[in-house]
Amino acid sequence: MKIIAYAEAGHTALGVVTSATHFVAVADIAPDLPASLIAILEQEDGLARLQKAAQGREGDRLLASVTLKPFLDRPNAMWALALNFKSHIAETGLQTSMEFPHLFMRTAASYVGGGEPIVAPPEAIARAFDYEGELAVVIGKPGRYIPVEQAMEHVAGYTCLNEGSVREYQMHNRQFGLGKNFEASGSYGPWLMTGDEFGDPATHTVVTRVNGVVRQRAPLDDMLLDVARVISYLSQGYRLRPGDLIAMGTPGALKPQPDDKEGQDLSRQYGPFPTPGLVHMRPGDCVEVEIDGLGVLRNPVTTDTSYSTSAR
Amino acid sequence: MKIIAYAEAGHTALGVVTSATHFVAVADIAPDLPASLIAILEQEDGLARLQKAAQGREGDRLLASVTLKPFLDRPNAMWALALNFKSHIAETGLQTSMEFPHLFMRTAASYVGGGEPIVAPPEAIARAFDYEGELAVVIGKPGRYIPVEQAMEHVAGYTCLNEGSVREYQMHNRQFGLGKNFEASGSYGPWLMTGDEFGDPATHTVVTRVNGVVRQRAPLDDMLLDVARVISYLSQGYRLRPGDLIAMGTPGALKPQPDDKEGQDLSRQYGPFPTPGLVHMRPGDCVEVEIDGLGVLRNPVTTDTSYSTSAR
Repeated sequence: MKIIAYAEAGHTALGVVTSATHFVAVADIAPDLPASLIAILEQEDGLARLQKAAQGREGDRLLASVTLKPFLDRPNAMWALALNFKSHIAETGLQTSMEFPHLFMRTAASYVGGGEPIVAPPEAIARAFDYEGELAVVIGKPGRYIPVEQAMEHVAGYTCLNEGSVREYQMHNRQFGLGKNFEASGSYGPWLMTGDEFGDPATHTVVTRVNGVVRQRAPLDDMLLDVARVISYLSQGYRLRPGDLIAMGTPGALKPQPDDKEGQDLSRQYGPFPTPGLVHMRPGDCVEVEIDGLGVLRNPVTTDTSYSTSAR
Repeated sequence: MKIIAYAEAGHTALGVVTSATHFVAVADIAPDLPASLIAILEQEDGLARLQKAAQGREGDRLLASVTLKPFLDRPNAMWALALNFKSHIAETGLQTSMEFPHLFMRTAASYVGGGEPIVAPPEAIARAFDYEGELAVVIGKPGRYIPVEQAMEHVAGYTCLNEGSVREYQMHNRQFGLGKNFEASGSYGPWLMTGDEFGDPATHTVVTRVNGVVRQRAPLDDMLLDVARVISYLSQGYRLRPGDLIAMGTPGALKPQPDDKEGQDLSRQYGPFPTPGLVHMRPGDCVEVEIDGLGVLRNPVTTDTSYSTSAR
């Protein structure tokens, strides 16, 4: 099952995708379920009831006719992992623990949904605005002290995520802080795919494209610590809650092709680790994160027009 | 004005403190205002309306008869600063930027309210569970690209905060991650004091006591970066929202008195920086964070009893 959130008459509604082009509104097929995905996940049988209600339904609404939104309203925690792909650890040359996940947090306001514009910082503020294509996991069943062997039972599903990062701010101090939390700097979507449909993350591949050029491609089994290990670790500290999101880390950059001038031009990189094949996100770009079997998260990049009119 | 949140019949209600012992319920004096403090702050005149409604009221409820709760329901961001007091930078010997705040985030679930028990991790998981007495700022008026000179206009008020930290987990990797986010490991309260009543933070002092012994005491002008600087910095990255909380950092430990055996015993410290005068929080302790003119945040320390009964 693929669950979307979309804008409708000033609020956010939920839907279930029924084909490549269509969906049904949750309010139509299961009017007794809450209008919030987290509230559905909080009901022990919420997902199962939705799955049953959606079974065999033909979609009566066009995906192309709605604006997708982030499907998690005010989650308790939105985690992200740094340096969890061996190829990314290698390209940065940075140290990370081989045993414990390298965890930091983002706000809900730092993410937009599939198709919505990602917002680049004004150039006067920062220029090293980077995509990070990732798999993200959403918690369904709550729990504390979860053994690794039981961790996957706590997964509701998966989504594609662009963990957009402002490198200058990330490097202002030792904690990443604000550099990972610029307004609308990242995205996730286009939908939540339930775990039963997605299967084992390790058998999938994540690909990131900028304006159609593939910039990242990595099998998800290149992770240093897998989904089960990270869930088990987090549950040592707190009770995982329905809707908690974990972005599993990004792979390294692909080497640029011989005719790829932009990917070879390190002089246009403003971050701390100029890397062949890395390009920054700039207004006018289109960035895609695709995970095979899951879908494509596609976002145009814009910039913050409120800046120039602000008092400085 | 001092605003509290308290448990009532299974939900959280708001009140305004009228004396050392009494308060009035917001629902009684301003039934048209929302039951959420963030929702009140989101109304441009919300705080002013509450202040007017509370004026001259005599409290008809006893503070001692209710359980205080955290007064921010699902805030967008709960920031905290590392290494922002010169005395704390000196005792750790750690590097931090002199120019940019050292920012990380916590979840709402990591905090309890005044009087509620703070939960120490099970000993088998971690032992270096430390208090951090702090001033916290709550944003009222939203804004982006806020100049330093205008930053204080965006403050709704202040509260005392214990930024309880699990040092072993904080040191698992370079980002603090889970070590700053154990369930119910910190607290804030007992109330939000509005900025007009609190005045200039720099003229106040924060004191932390464990079982009556003073362990931290520092003037709030010992901060490396003050409230206005931090607000202005954060607003470069995102639109500050009503209810966003910023914990301004903790001072160093006071040198132990000659007869203070516990404070001198470094062999009972399990953290990375054994420090004379530092003691860990343990079940049975009572920890207080006091800011003069604001109030006392007092929490008993307990431990997580669900651990031993869990499957391991």
